[in-house]
Amino acid sequence: MKKLEGISLISNEGTLESWNDGPAKQSIIDFLKSSTEEGPNYVKPAGRIATFDNDGTLWVEQPVPVQLDFLFRVFANTAQNDPSLASKQPYKAILERDETFFQKALEQNPEAIMALEGAFAREWSGKTPDEFEAEVREFFATVKQEKFAANFTDLVYKPMLELFDLLKSYEYRVFVCSGGGRDFMRVISEETWGIFKENVIGSASEYEYHNGALTRGDRVLGGVALGPGKVEHVFARTGRLPVVAGGNGDVDIEMLESAKFRLFIHHDDDEREYAYENGAEKLLAIAEEKKYTIVSMKNDWNEIFR
Amino acid sequence: MKKLEGISLISNEGTLESWNDGPAKQSIIDFLKSSTEEGPNYVKPAGRIATFDNDGTLWVEQPVPVQLDFLFRVFANTAQNDPSLASKQPYKAILERDETFFQKALEQNPEAIMALEGAFAREWSGKTPDEFEAEVREFFATVKQEKFAANFTDLVYKPMLELFDLLKSYEYRVFVCSGGGRDFMRVISEETWGIFKENVIGSASEYEYHNGALTRGDRVLGGVALGPGKVEHVFARTGRLPVVAGGNGDVDIEMLESAKFRLFIHHDDDEREYAYENGAEKLLAIAEEKKYTIVSMKNDWNEIFR
Repeated sequence: MKKLEGISLISNEGTLESWNDGPAKQSIIDFLKSSTEEGPNYVKPAGRIATFDNDGTLWVEQPVPVQLDFLFRVFANTAQNDPSLASKQPYKAILERDETFFQKALEQNPEAIMALEGAFAREWSGKTPDEFEAEVREFFATVKQEKFAANFTDLVYKPMLELFDLLKSYEYRVFVCSGGGRDFMRVISEETWGIFKENVIGSASEYEYHNGALTRGDRVLGGVALGPGKVEHVFARTGRLPVVAGGNGDVDIEMLESAKFRLFIHHDDDEREYAYENGAEKLLAIAEEKKYTIVSMKNDWNEIFR
Repeated sequence: MKKLEGISLISNEGTLESWNDGPAKQSIIDFLKSSTEEGPNYVKPAGRIATFDNDGTLWVEQPVPVQLDFLFRVFANTAQNDPSLASKQPYKAILERDETFFQKALEQNPEAIMALEGAFAREWSGKTPDEFEAEVREFFATVKQEKFAANFTDLVYKPMLELFDLLKSYEYRVFVCSGGGRDFMRVISEETWGIFKENVIGSASEYEYHNGALTRGDRVLGGVALGPGKVEHVFARTGRLPVVAGGNGDVDIEMLESAKFRLFIHHDDDEREYAYENGAEKLLAIAEEKKYTIVSMKNDWNEIFR
C-alpha cells in the first residue's frame, strides 16, 4: 500500500472487518466490484468519486454536532465577554439553549443563517488560518463528548474508515462533504480520516490575501453545504457528481440522490452509540422506498469506534 | 508507475529529458531533493503542493490566451445574432478588437470585470455542465492556433508535463490555478495534462442544484483567480499555500511569492514559440531580484511542445 505519512492515495487492500456479513456489507462489495469491471455499472477510473457527510456519518453527532459544540462554546465565551451581545442572535439562543433557533438554521432560514454568519465574521474576520487552527486544536484537546467521556476524534466510526480503504482499493477518490466548517474539519482530516485537506469540502468563509498574508473575510463563500448546497459544493470542488455517497440526515438527501450508490447510516444502537431518527425522517423514507443500502449500526457493525 | 487511465497519482520515475542541463534544471532537481530529505528545506508529504498557472505557463498564450479566444468567439457570435448587444461591453470591445478593454479586465477594473461577468451570465446561465462541455469540445476540435496551425492542446509544453511527472515522483500533488475558467480547463485537464478535474482551480461561475439537475447561475464565485485571487483560490481548494509554484505573468506574482520554490517561465524563443515580456515586466524584475528559478524557453528547453 502506497502511503503518504499514513494517508493512502491508493490502497491495495481493504477489508471490512468491523462489518458483519449481511446485505449491507454485501451490497457495498457487489457495487464496488461491478463499478470497476466491464458491464452496465462500469465507471471509468477518473470518474470514481465518493463523498461522505461528516456529522453522524463519520463520527458521533449527539447530543450536538461537534462543529456546533465548538461554535457554541466560542460564541458563548464571546457573549460573556461582551454582554451587549447577549440579547442578539445567535448569542441569545446559545446562552438560552434555544433549540428552535438551531432548527431554523438547519432548515436554512435566512434570518438564522445571517445571524450565524454575522457571528462567524465577528469572531474570526481578520484572523489567519494558523490562528483558527490553534483554536480548533485547543478545542479537540480539551473538550470531551458527554456520553463517552472521550475526545471527539476517538469517536470516529471504524467501519467507515475501513470503507474508505476499500474504496481506495477500487481506485475511488474519497471526499468528505459536510455542512460543517471546511477549515474546522481540515484541522483533523489527515490524522483522523487519512483524507488530505484538499479532499475536505464544507461551508467556508472567504479568505483575503493581502501583503503576503491570508486572513479570513466576513462572508461565507458559495453558501452553506447543506441540502442542494452539498451537490453544488461537490461539483465546484471535483467537477463531477459522486458515484458513491453516504449520509445519515435529511440535509444529505440531494447528495445521495445525485450518486449511483447510496449508503444511509441508520442510528439504531442506543447502547453502543445513540438511537434516533430525528432529522432523518425524510431520508429514511426515501432510503426505504428507493432501496438505498441501509446500514444498521446495531446489526451491521461489530465495532463502532476506531 | 501507478496509473489511473493514464493519470498518475504518484510517479516512480520522472525525467526532465526535454530540459537542457543548466542552472534551471539543476535548481529544480536540487530543490525537490532537499524538500524531501531531512534538513532545513524538508516538507512533510501532506504539505507537498505544487501549483501552476496555465496560459503561457503550460501552453501558448499568444496572440491571445486560449480561454479568451473561446470567449471572444462565443460572445462575437452572440452579438451577431443580437445586434442590440453590439454597443454594449464586452461585445463592443470584441467586435472592435479594443485591446484597452481587455487590459482593463486583466487589471481587474470593476467595470470591465462586471461587463464580462454579465456576458458570462447571459451566455451560460441555466445551462448544464454537459452543455458547456460540448461547446468547449467543439471549440478545441475546430479552432487552430494561428502561428502553428495546430490544436491548442497540441501546444502544451512538453517540459512542463515532464516536470509534473517529476513532482509526482517526489510525492507532490500537482494543481493548475489559472485566471481562466475552471470548467473550461477541466474539459481537457485529464487527457492533456494528466491532472484530475478536481486539481484544476480557476475562475468559475456558481452552480445551482435544483430538481436533480445542476445548472449554471449568473455569478462568478469567489472572485477571479488573478493576482491575490490565485492564492485565495489555492487556499480555498487545498487548505495550504503552495510549496512549488510556476507562472509567467504579473498576475502570478502573489502565487509565486506565497511559495517556497518559484519558477518563472521566460518567453524568449521567437523562433520556436514567441518572445515577449509584455504583462510580465513586474514579475521578471522580482524574479531577477529574488533569485527565482528563471526558465529560458530558448536555452533551457530542447523541445517545446508535447
